[in-house]
Amino acid sequence: MSHEKMRNSDLIGSDRVEGTAVYGSDGDKIGTVERVLIEKRGGQARDVEISVGSFLGMGGELHSLPWEKFDYNTDLDGYQLDVTEDQLKGAPTYKKSERDTAYDRDYQTRSYEYWAVRPYW
Amino acid sequence: MSHEKMRNSDLIGSDRVEGTAVYGSDGDKIGTVERVLIEKRGGQARDVEISVGSFLGMGGELHSLPWEKFDYNTDLDGYQLDVTEDQLKGAPTYKKSERDTAYDRDYQTRSYEYWAVRPYW
Repeated sequence: MSHEKMRNSDLIGSDRVEGTAVYGSDGDKIGTVERVLIEKRGGQARDVEISVGSFLGMGGELHSLPWEKFDYNTDLDGYQLDVTEDQLKGAPTYKKSERDTAYDRDYQTRSYEYWAVRPYW
Repeated sequence: MSHEKMRNSDLIGSDRVEGTAVYGSDGDKIGTVERVLIEKRGGQARDVEISVGSFLGMGGELHSLPWEKFDYNTDLDGYQLDVTEDQLKGAPTYKKSERDTAYDRDYQTRSYEYWAVRPYW
């Protein structure tokens, strides 16, 4: 992150992850991190919720993808997905207004299936 | 968290952890979560930064403590430290204005030593 001056560079503050750009596998910006979903007890980040396509003042769609789909790219100083924006188009999605009910284990199941990631639960 | 309606109750959004109350081992509120420090690559939460004693409009002092010092308390619907406010008084601390330079591996070393937690690094 460009505003990051932390000398402890293997860690990043959750408040700095939120709002940072997310790049696709081709290097194009495809969205913004909304939040990280972490396990209440263990503290392991499991999913990253990103907003995609919020142009023209529209809210955009939210996607939560497994953490392991993201790589920290030091050149971009941000997170890079190993998928393209096109691949995102068929993925499970929800709107910000329905976030609290739409993001659940059922959504996760569809997401992990779509992204071919073995569920952690 | 009282505003939490997520049906996926083993996970919590980073944006919801930030700003929530932190309770001491005696159940008294002793501070507020500022942010979670997570590993950029692995996604494991390592430290939690809390602000303590920000009354009278003062900024308060920041402490970063190892994640494992916190327990998620479902009754309090928040995080509970296994230490008291008194024990915090002698712990390594820094001010918000110096956060970016003060929180580093050296700080972590002093913090883990003070809290008698085995470093993960």
